[in-house]
Amino acid sequence: MTNISFITIGTELLKGRIINTNAAEAGLLLRKHGFQLARVVSIADTEEAILDALEVELERSEIILISGGLGPTKDDITKHTLAKWAQTELVWHEPTLIGLEQRYAARDRELNRLTKAQALLPERCLVVKNHQGTAPGMGFLKEGKLVVSMPGVPFEMLYMLEHEVIPLIQNQFPVGTFQHSVLRLADIPESKAAERMEKLESDLPEEIDIAYLPRADGLWLELSVRLEGDNHGRGAEILQQANKMVSSLFQDKLYTIGETPLPQLLIDYFQSKNLTLGMVEIVSGGMLSKKMYECSGVEKVVAGALHFPDQDRLTSFFEKEDWPEQEEVLAQTLARKARDLFGSDIGLATVGHPERGGDQPAVVWIGISDLHTTVVHQASFLYQRKINIDRSTHYAMQFCLKIAKERFA
Amino acid sequence: MTNISFITIGTELLKGRIINTNAAEAGLLLRKHGFQLARVVSIADTEEAILDALEVELERSEIILISGGLGPTKDDITKHTLAKWAQTELVWHEPTLIGLEQRYAARDRELNRLTKAQALLPERCLVVKNHQGTAPGMGFLKEGKLVVSMPGVPFEMLYMLEHEVIPLIQNQFPVGTFQHSVLRLADIPESKAAERMEKLESDLPEEIDIAYLPRADGLWLELSVRLEGDNHGRGAEILQQANKMVSSLFQDKLYTIGETPLPQLLIDYFQSKNLTLGMVEIVSGGMLSKKMYECSGVEKVVAGALHFPDQDRLTSFFEKEDWPEQEEVLAQTLARKARDLFGSDIGLATVGHPERGGDQPAVVWIGISDLHTTVVHQASFLYQRKINIDRSTHYAMQFCLKIAKERFA
Repeated sequence: MTNISFITIGTELLKGRIINTNAAEAGLLLRKHGFQLARVVSIADTEEAILDALEVELERSEIILISGGLGPTKDDITKHTLAKWAQTELVWHEPTLIGLEQRYAARDRELNRLTKAQALLPERCLVVKNHQGTAPGMGFLKEGKLVVSMPGVPFEMLYMLEHEVIPLIQNQFPVGTFQHSVLRLADIPESKAAERMEKLESDLPEEIDIAYLPRADGLWLELSVRLEGDNHGRGAEILQQANKMVSSLFQDKLYTIGETPLPQLLIDYFQSKNLTLGMVEIVSGGMLSKKMYECSGVEKVVAGALHFPDQDRLTSFFEKEDWPEQEEVLAQTLARKARDLFGSDIGLATVGHPERGGDQPAVVWIGISDLHTTVVHQASFLYQRKINIDRSTHYAMQFCLKIAKERFA
Repeated sequence: MTNISFITIGTELLKGRIINTNAAEAGLLLRKHGFQLARVVSIADTEEAILDALEVELERSEIILISGGLGPTKDDITKHTLAKWAQTELVWHEPTLIGLEQRYAARDRELNRLTKAQALLPERCLVVKNHQGTAPGMGFLKEGKLVVSMPGVPFEMLYMLEHEVIPLIQNQFPVGTFQHSVLRLADIPESKAAERMEKLESDLPEEIDIAYLPRADGLWLELSVRLEGDNHGRGAEILQQANKMVSSLFQDKLYTIGETPLPQLLIDYFQSKNLTLGMVEIVSGGMLSKKMYECSGVEKVVAGALHFPDQDRLTSFFEKEDWPEQEEVLAQTLARKARDLFGSDIGLATVGHPERGGDQPAVVWIGISDLHTTVVHQASFLYQRKINIDRSTHYAMQFCLKIAKERFA
């Protein structure tokens, strides 16, 4: 397999001022095309750090991708360093210069000295066109290895990687086929899933790679297959076979296949069945509403939601009601109340307190009510307030989806 | 200065399945304590990759922090590799084992074989307590260099870094003095702020470093000073001087100093004035409730909130009301309604639609009402739905804090 290193240049990455989304986006994109990153390195924007990183990565990979350190505010440190490394001089690159002039003329702006300097590029380098910005990329082939420098601005980098750099790599290096699927499990910790998976170990096709990704909405199992050479065409078949085996192993835990976000799954299911939802949120704190509100189609499904940061606030809002003291019963009562209040098909209530009491976990109750039945489910979480709220919210969505599928199949 | 490398282990990082937030968070936290990352490296979870990365980073840094590669589904690859590297064996670590047993007993769950194995740790390593999860950290001192391995789960890693690992580093390595302050501006873009700042350039103390950090709640200006050796004691004085100059330059835009999250600022202010808040959320979609619910003291301030994903849902909820068609008026009406419904001192309403119409921005209206007056403010955003919701929420909080400070000084 071809090893690829990605060097992301910028002190702001090391200071924590910027999250390195470029690495993740490049990783995804490369994988779609059958390649995989072997190493990602973030370094300061100094000549010393760049030359050192180049040396380290050239010993380990056939392809070195670089982003960042271009542009006037960085003193074009990457360009100068690469010219030094390649033992060349900077010369004017006519097509880039003409492109810049046209770009600025079209916007009726003058090309200033600093921007014009972006057309000064290392002699004999392969100039990589930047369709989204002004700083071109630069490619170097040396001793069979490919070094490509791209701008650091995420959308410029991504466009260049997809449309210019990956085709370049495909031309120069052997490509494999990559396919993957995601099985999503509820209510099973990573360790239990791994234990159960041991049963399959000897039967699963050996080309299959399994990744366990614990997410707020449960455990994602990613099955993937990468094929090179002769086996090239067999990927889909192998993946399907593995999918079947893993699905049946986890049939009691599997709640969906694919990567659609949980709130969108819920909205889509409700919409497909023409159902509406009303909510009373205590322990989920408004996060249920927020998650669903981010989805398309929400206005057809969510009739409304009420939120109280504390159970005590219920009595001042509903003056004439008596509320049960037991949280389990309260969750049921509020689920019914949610249906009534908002005139929805299903009522959902989240009750409890998101803070743990010393060693005791935070206990939450999720109530769900339709015309015929009201059910309630308990969960407990041992994290900090903010994460307990997040988990309660995802738990409520999962439980709601499950109940809706049972009742309105 | 002490060099620190951060090795983040996990194929999921290279695949683009996970964005490396750990690196950014660690970078921020270290900087607060006077340290700075020199290199961040992401590698696959294989013994070969880990040993190789350790070798590369040990040649370059005095401190190597590692995260990830712990836990059953990774086969605890980091732990095994570190034991091999340190030439030790894994042995049962009693305090960790007892802690695990207690944790599981409290949740009435059984400790399975794979989870129990987390108490198997390299002999003679420095066991670093994990207050947020089950996998402990491990520290090694070798030839004057410090290697510390932490779990990959972000909140576990961060807590451990802050409360266990940074104190360990401070004990072992010389620290510079790093001091910083954050001035937070509303309603001014980065480029305008930079332009205005040019006036100060020649007067500002040369030890001061300025970073522009655009955030959802406005522009954060971070002023920082790092001092070593003789100048050690002068940091506070220099910073105070710079603070004064920058504050007066931006006095019309400055809304707070410090890093307290905006919702907490709001809760704190309301609590200090003994005020309560009721809300009707349309365009903020429940996010206002959620943001405030994450803060301590929320139950003393927020009386309750209602959310509708669409203005049309109002008419089915409040059957007997006539709602104004104009959104500006609706925001005022709903702000008053929020006060009435929840019996609060202040009512807040967010109205509008978070989706832009082609080239037209998403327009939102924020209404705020107290016993005497109701005011309304308009804002518009050009992003995607999710980001427009986020911006509307922050805008509403900022506006609410401003009004509360004016009315209830």
